Amino acid sequence: MKNVKLTIEYDGTGFHGWQRQDHHRTVQEEVEKALEKIIKKRITIHGSGRTDAGVHGLGQVASFKEDFTIPIDKIPLAVNALLPDDVAIRNAEEVSLDFHARYSAVGKRYIYKIYNRPLRSPLQRNYAYFVPTELNLDAIKKASSFFIGEHDFKAFMASGSSIKDTVRRIHRLHVYQEQDMLTIEVEGNGFLYNMVRIMAGTLVDIGKSKISPENIPQIISSGDRTKAGHTAPPQGLYLAEVYYG
Amino acid sequence: MKNVKLTIEYDGTGFHGWQRQDHHRTVQEEVEKALEKIIKKRITIHGSGRTDAGVHGLGQVASFKEDFTIPIDKIPLAVNALLPDDVAIRNAEEVSLDFHARYSAVGKRYIYKIYNRPLRSPLQRNYAYFVPTELNLDAIKKASSFFIGEHDFKAFMASGSSIKDTVRRIHRLHVYQEQDMLTIEVEGNGFLYNMVRIMAGTLVDIGKSKISPENIPQIISSGDRTKAGHTAPPQGLYLAEVYYG
Repeated sequence: MKNVKLTIEYDGTGFHGWQRQDHHRTVQEEVEKALEKIIKKRITIHGSGRTDAGVHGLGQVASFKEDFTIPIDKIPLAVNALLPDDVAIRNAEEVSLDFHARYSAVGKRYIYKIYNRPLRSPLQRNYAYFVPTELNLDAIKKASSFFIGEHDFKAFMASGSSIKDTVRRIHRLHVYQEQDMLTIEVEGNGFLYNMVRIMAGTLVDIGKSKISPENIPQIISSGDRTKAGHTAPPQGLYLAEVYYG
Repeated sequence: MKNVKLTIEYDGTGFHGWQRQDHHRTVQEEVEKALEKIIKKRITIHGSGRTDAGVHGLGQVASFKEDFTIPIDKIPLAVNALLPDDVAIRNAEEVSLDFHARYSAVGKRYIYKIYNRPLRSPLQRNYAYFVPTELNLDAIKKASSFFIGEHDFKAFMASGSSIKDTVRRIHRLHVYQEQDMLTIEVEGNGFLYNMVRIMAGTLVDIGKSKISPENIPQIISSGDRTKAGHTAPPQGLYLAEVYYG
C-alpha cells in the first residue's frame, strides 16, 4: 500500500469548486478520473480542504492510498496528459501511511488579488477582484496588522457555518501593490469558511473609508459577521500552499 | 466631425483575431457594435494593425471619425458596459483630423511570455508559451542583442507574405526572467507578419541549443525564413503599446 501526496494547480474559472458533486464539473472528480485511467483502480483523493467555484489552486494538496506499480515520479506527466488543460499535477511523492492531506495540514497560505484602476481589465477578469474606486493603501496596511496573532475569527466566517471552534492563528498578512494590482498574502494555521474572502472584502471597505482600520479589533471581538465587511468574490482567491509538520 | 483615438485591451483567447470577418468573432466587430449603440451610427474603426487569433491586446489602438454629441471622456465607461467581458476600452481621446491609428503609428511594443518549467501550468495555458525543457538564458540574451538596429527581417516574416519592404528597426529587445516566466519585450518602428513570434521561437530554439546565438546575423542576412527558428504560438504574444509622433 502506498500513500501519495499530490500538489495540484487549477484555474478555478471552469470548475464548480474542488469537491466532487453530482451534475457539476469539479477538480476532485477530474483528478480522480485521470488517476483511475493510469492506476486502473477507482481512486478517491482527499483534498486539504474545499475551494469554492471560481477560486484557483496554485498549490492545493490531496492524498490517496492505493496499491499500484507505476513509479510515483511518472504520475505527474502521465496524469497531466489525461487531465483537461485547466488542471494539472505539479508534484507527486510518496509519504508515510499516516499522512492525510487534510488532517495532517498545519497551515495554509492564500493569495488574494485586487485589480484597482478606473476601468475593468479583460485579461484579469477571472483572476482578480476588480475595484474601480481609489483605495487608501496606508489604511489597508494599518488594518491588516490587527489580524495577526490568535483570535476568534467568528466575525470573519460565512454565516450559517456550523463550526464550533472559530479560533485561528494568522502568522503573516502582507499587502503589497505592483502597478494596478493589490495583492494580499495571508498565512495561518487554518481558515474558516470564506474567511480570506471576508478579510479581503473588509480590507477593500477599509480602503474605501467605509470602515476605519482602528475598528478591526472591535469587529473581531464582536464575533458578529454583520460587523465585518463584504465577502470579496471568488476569482481573486488562490490557495497558494498547504503546510505540513 | 471628431476624430477619436481608442486604446483597447482584450483577452485574445476567445477571438478570431482583431480584424472583422464573416462568421467569426473578432475584436474589431465587438467594439464597432458597442460603439454603434452609443453613437447611434454605424462606425468603422481602424486598428493600428491586426492581431491573430489567441494574441492579446494590452494597448491596441484604433481610431474612427464621426459626428456625435456624447462627450468623448464618457465613451470608455459607456462602451465597456456594452462590450463582452473579454474586451474593454482603456482610454478614448479626441485627436487631430489627420490622425490614423495605422498610418500615424511610428512604432510598437510587444511582450512575449514563455512559461518554462517541467510541468504545464493551467493558469498560464492561454497567456504564455509553455516550454518544458530547460532553456539557456545566457544564450538567449546573447542572441537577442543581434536583433537590435535596422535590418532586413525577411527571414523573420511568415512565408507567403507579400510585403516588399522588409527593413525594420528594432530599438530595444529586453529578455528577463521572474520565477518560471521568461519575458521578451521588444520595441521597434514596425513589425512584419509573425515577426515577433518567429523571433520568440528562434530565441527558444537558441535556449535549447538548436541554434547558436552567433548564427543570428547570418540568419538575418540570409533573408531565408527556413533558416530562422519556429513560430512561437499566439497565446504568449501581447501587443503592449503603439507609439505615435
